[in-house]
Amino acid sequence: MGDYAHILTRRDEATITITMNRPQRRNSLSQEHLVELLAAFREAGESDATGIVLAGEGPVFSAGHDFGDVAARDLTGVRELLQLCTELMDTVQSVPQVVLAKVHGLATAAGCQLVGACDLAVAADSAGFALPGGKGGWFCHTPAVPVARNIGRKRLMEMALTGDVIDAATALDWGLINRVAADDVLDDAVADLLARATRGSRTSKALGKQTLYAQLDRPEQDAYAIALEVMAAASQLPAAREGMAAFLEKRHPDWPD
Amino acid sequence: MGDYAHILTRRDEATITITMNRPQRRNSLSQEHLVELLAAFREAGESDATGIVLAGEGPVFSAGHDFGDVAARDLTGVRELLQLCTELMDTVQSVPQVVLAKVHGLATAAGCQLVGACDLAVAADSAGFALPGGKGGWFCHTPAVPVARNIGRKRLMEMALTGDVIDAATALDWGLINRVAADDVLDDAVADLLARATRGSRTSKALGKQTLYAQLDRPEQDAYAIALEVMAAASQLPAAREGMAAFLEKRHPDWPD
Amino acid sequence: MGDYAHILTRRDEATITITMNRPQRRNSLSQEHLVELLAAFREAGESDATGIVLAGEGPVFSAGHDFGDVAARDLTGVRELLQLCTELMDTVQSVPQVVLAKVHGLATAAGCQLVGACDLAVAADSAGFALPGGKGGWFCHTPAVPVARNIGRKRLMEMALTGDVIDAATALDWGLINRVAADDVLDDAVADLLARATRGSRTSKALGKQTLYAQLDRPEQDAYAIALEVMAAASQLPAAREGMAAFLEKRHPDWPD
Repeated sequence: MGDYAHILTRRDEATITITMNRPQRRNSLSQEHLVELLAAFREAGESDATGIVLAGEGPVFSAGHDFGDVAARDLTGVRELLQLCTELMDTVQSVPQVVLAKVHGLATAAGCQLVGACDLAVAADSAGFALPGGKGGWFCHTPAVPVARNIGRKRLMEMALTGDVIDAATALDWGLINRVAADDVLDDAVADLLARATRGSRTSKALGKQTLYAQLDRPEQDAYAIALEVMAAASQLPAAREGMAAFLEKRHPDWPD
Repeated sequence: MGDYAHILTRRDEATITITMNRPQRRNSLSQEHLVELLAAFREAGESDATGIVLAGEGPVFSAGHDFGDVAARDLTGVRELLQLCTELMDTVQSVPQVVLAKVHGLATAAGCQLVGACDLAVAADSAGFALPGGKGGWFCHTPAVPVARNIGRKRLMEMALTGDVIDAATALDWGLINRVAADDVLDDAVADLLARATRGSRTSKALGKQTLYAQLDRPEQDAYAIALEVMAAASQLPAAREGMAAFLEKRHPDWPD
Repeated sequence: MGDYAHILTRRDEATITITMNRPQRRNSLSQEHLVELLAAFREAGESDATGIVLAGEGPVFSAGHDFGDVAARDLTGVRELLQLCTELMDTVQSVPQVVLAKVHGLATAAGCQLVGACDLAVAADSAGFALPGGKGGWFCHTPAVPVARNIGRKRLMEMALTGDVIDAATALDWGLINRVAADDVLDDAVADLLARATRGSRTSKALGKQTLYAQLDRPEQDAYAIALEVMAAASQLPAAREGMAAFLEKRHPDWPD
């Protein structure tokens, strides 16, 4: 992984961890920070890693956009910043790896959006989640997009309109995250879920992840039209062939990729 | 607020309460009742109030359409009635205020639809929710529309096909409502949630609410296309400017609206 | 009901039970099995039954596609198999009867898809649900389509990416199923929910079920456009007329169909 000023990267076997490292700015997403996160996700996406963990250094996961960066921008400048941010969210979902948000402390605004956008999320007991724009002057319009696709509508409205923080247990109950762990065993919980989620053929999983996002939020027949063609094509790939052969021959599969 | 025959209106500071007041008809939604509710929501929508509470007088929140009004209508007449009803639901979601359903007793058919359509809902322990058309002769087709957008599909199917009443605790668990309170503290629970949901800039919140409904139930990229443009434009409005300035200057904001 | 080699059918009063009967193959969905299931659902759909129960014989509900059948197929052959399977899922949702999955043991891959596609589902304590393609070489692309429309996105991602089995209590909590019962009272739980779900006018219910699927997963205004027209038209049918008349005359309805 390349050198970055605002983030840390680490590779442990098949997992790349990307850590937001601006604790003095509560890991807020300045343009420079977003540019580096996007570059790191693209770099990790092109690697042979099977999983990516997104984490934050310091007491806060991420406070969202950096008002110091936004306040001076005109319409064109803010639009460019939001396009960059949306491109990051899209990249998180389009890289072939499983992306897991490891959340401790607060994840607010675009920081909460990151949690919503990741494939999976594991939070520490200390974590909290909020869309605080609702109690301020700049509503969390874009952060609400992936959050709305993880939790029910009344709960989204409550988060978006009140701006209040929900705790990790509530986030788990509502479906925004997959696991809650005590702070001192958060790393173990992350490693366990990521290991489960990265088993099997890497090629098959990547195609699977990307097709899931393509079929969601569409009428069921439109979703089938997408999923059916991909599943038929995928049946001819080496991984599917090996998986079926191993099953029929009662042996362990040897994944081609 | 104007004079109404079938509803009561009251203003307390920044909150307008619209109370269905046909208890002898279980607050059923006759054409005249719907016309008044629509007029009252439009009137409240044009006011400077920040919150609207929808409540019902008597033992029942609302029993839905008034069969005494429907039974004599031909296709054109029923369609007109349903268009009026749908216009009410749409108005609840398009007024700039936060709309909260305060539910005691039964909310059935179009009464349950109202709960689904409101931004937020707080229910008394005594409340119950049902789509009873499923066990009768006229299925709850339109009431199921907003209910389906608050709860999961299997749960919608159970409500719509059985017509059975679910209690307030189940409605909370399924995400149809935001809070359950003992009957004698229902008003306090409503006031607390509404106060939280109406903080901050009124203009920003109104744009936020309307954009949430615009982006829901669409593929994620379509939702981003909507939310991104609104969020960029909103960054240039006085409320966002003031919010960011106050944050950066470490002072309390003075919302322009 | 006709003769089938791979399935059992039984009629008890107004309920037709279709039982997958290839226990030696874990009720996997070979082409021949799918052809029979589709034919049986079509036959039951044209009957005057009001409910259909889908069950499995032996220790497993259904293990999904039969790799022995898939492994030898080319792209065209797999596509044909998946089109047949999707046609079955579509038929489950388009027959006029209420369709309830009675699940004991494991429901995996396309077996789990069947549970997602049925209107209602009741599971025994022993049941488990999985999308195992995620840990293998052939991802569960099409099985994820109806599962995604019953449970939240993070939970779908967890099932699809890990391939792990969730137990009946978790499936209930996430909304994939409607009831859990001890294995020895599963039949009673199925009969109770199905009886509740098949009350009232058969014609009205059939129109209701089909319209629910038509309006789901669409922007709310598109959903209203569908539901409003159907509800207006339905008001003129004999069942709605009888239902309203009976209500207004305070008598029990005598459904015309």
